[in-house]
Amino acid sequence: MPVGAGKKALLASLGLIASTGTAAALATLWKKDDVVAHCAQPLDLSSNFVQLYPGPSAGIPVDNGPGPSTCGRWDQNWDRREPASLIRPSKSKIDSSGGPVKENELAAATPKATRNLFFIRHGHYMVDAISDEGRVLTELGRAQARTTGRRLAELDLPWTKLVYSSMARARETAQIISECLPNIVMESTDLIREGAPIPPEPPTPNWRPGAQQYFEDGARIEAAFRSVVHRADPDQEKDSYELIVCHANVIRYFVCRALQLPPEAWLRMSLHHASMTWLAIRPNGRVSLRTFGDSGHIPPHQLTTS
Amino acid sequence: MPVGAGKKALLASLGLIASTGTAAALATLWKKDDVVAHCAQPLDLSSNFVQLYPGPSAGIPVDNGPGPSTCGRWDQNWDRREPASLIRPSKSKIDSSGGPVKENELAAATPKATRNLFFIRHGHYMVDAISDEGRVLTELGRAQARTTGRRLAELDLPWTKLVYSSMARARETAQIISECLPNIVMESTDLIREGAPIPPEPPTPNWRPGAQQYFEDGARIEAAFRSVVHRADPDQEKDSYELIVCHANVIRYFVCRALQLPPEAWLRMSLHHASMTWLAIRPNGRVSLRTFGDSGHIPPHQLTTS
Repeated sequence: MPVGAGKKALLASLGLIASTGTAAALATLWKKDDVVAHCAQPLDLSSNFVQLYPGPSAGIPVDNGPGPSTCGRWDQNWDRREPASLIRPSKSKIDSSGGPVKENELAAATPKATRNLFFIRHGHYMVDAISDEGRVLTELGRAQARTTGRRLAELDLPWTKLVYSSMARARETAQIISECLPNIVMESTDLIREGAPIPPEPPTPNWRPGAQQYFEDGARIEAAFRSVVHRADPDQEKDSYELIVCHANVIRYFVCRALQLPPEAWLRMSLHHASMTWLAIRPNGRVSLRTFGDSGHIPPHQLTTS
Repeated sequence: MPVGAGKKALLASLGLIASTGTAAALATLWKKDDVVAHCAQPLDLSSNFVQLYPGPSAGIPVDNGPGPSTCGRWDQNWDRREPASLIRPSKSKIDSSGGPVKENELAAATPKATRNLFFIRHGHYMVDAISDEGRVLTELGRAQARTTGRRLAELDLPWTKLVYSSMARARETAQIISECLPNIVMESTDLIREGAPIPPEPPTPNWRPGAQQYFEDGARIEAAFRSVVHRADPDQEKDSYELIVCHANVIRYFVCRALQLPPEAWLRMSLHHASMTWLAIRPNGRVSLRTFGDSGHIPPHQLTTS
């Protein structure tokens, strides 16, 4: 089923950048939008959206694949930082026409930079220890953390800061990584400790956190998401590259929430130890998953997940 | 907000395997389930699901984060290969009690092996050429393909076969990779050529395939999904490790469909050239995303996306 030649120019159009340059150049280029223009005039596809998929009543009743789901709509104001939602409503009809004052307010509330969040899972650890403090990295876990630290250094991005969970295995992983990134600002928080974010769907027969655990952890991990994952502040001048060293459940939940996917799907993904998961958040609030569980830098004999 | 010590054993329970062994050992261990048991008795969480999240009418009307969405339910028979759905319905009340015959039929229809699908995006290519045959890999693209081929060889998994899109850039990438995996069985198909799978949500202002393109490509790429992504045949004895060399839109759409996420979310993800995206499909139909866009093996100066 080859595709007609006339369409081929369009078929090549998705992706981010064309770069044959150095890692330093990547830092500049990665801020561009994911989609390269291949037409003269931009078009709002939202109007096409309905026309192309008229729905079951207008379509042929055949199982010919999914149309757009009713739950896949993108909430532009997902992080409550959409500029128009931040400025005061106009108080009179005259103000509502939008004068220079309102434009200034809008401009002041509009982000300019992209936030790149790199979530690093901790390394392999002593899973059977009875307390968190005993659950330190194994020798293998320390080797994984060093390998990832070296990869991050090699990427040569302008790393902004390193935030880490206060659990022992994350703290130790962060410490080892920081030795590869001299002078990086470090910050610890309890918010991103491991936990049970939401009952997974499909349910799993052999993992059973209690209702109380979901009740406490779920709200904490959601609070962590709101605190960590959002578009840049309007006063952020440059793109940022932040490292967050934490845990598999937290990262998987964050990915679902950031991409506006059903959060209960988090257990449909798994993460290698010391792997890198990269979310880019554009100034306009769009989010792109650039890698999930990136671990190609880890030698095969060091690859583990639990 | 540290988590109580009594819960900590449970917090450590997610992931796949504990392996300090070799790559050869991984091939055996990867077939285990994603979730390690940490309780004596398995529990069907589906009953808890409703109790924990009683819904807006019973809950406190506060914006305290997402409960389970109405669209996140897992369809166990997503690939129409659920064993119970494959055997003939009983014809009488006596048969419906289930005798040895039915059990034999069920056993014969039940998969035993895990399919590991590794989707490889083609390398960097001549995007401006006017025909597909002109859109060959650049020198950089060939280097990326070689790097990924070497990584696949290094993983030392029992690679089963290599399927590739018939477009020039995928064909060339597959050829270079095959040089690193001597004697691998190769197969080409038009089904997984690049295309426009479904209008992305949110819409993007600067990419505009026509309605006709979505109409043709959408059904073809859905057909490709059904043909390529499904649990193992019941007669497959061993876990398989298959390589599929194709295109960013195809891979992103497949990931959404395989994880039962809204397919229109496909453009919320991006993929490096020659990156590896790994889906594991268990005998019971469960699907796990093991990596997405894994590219840690590619030197930073070779990382590109379009």
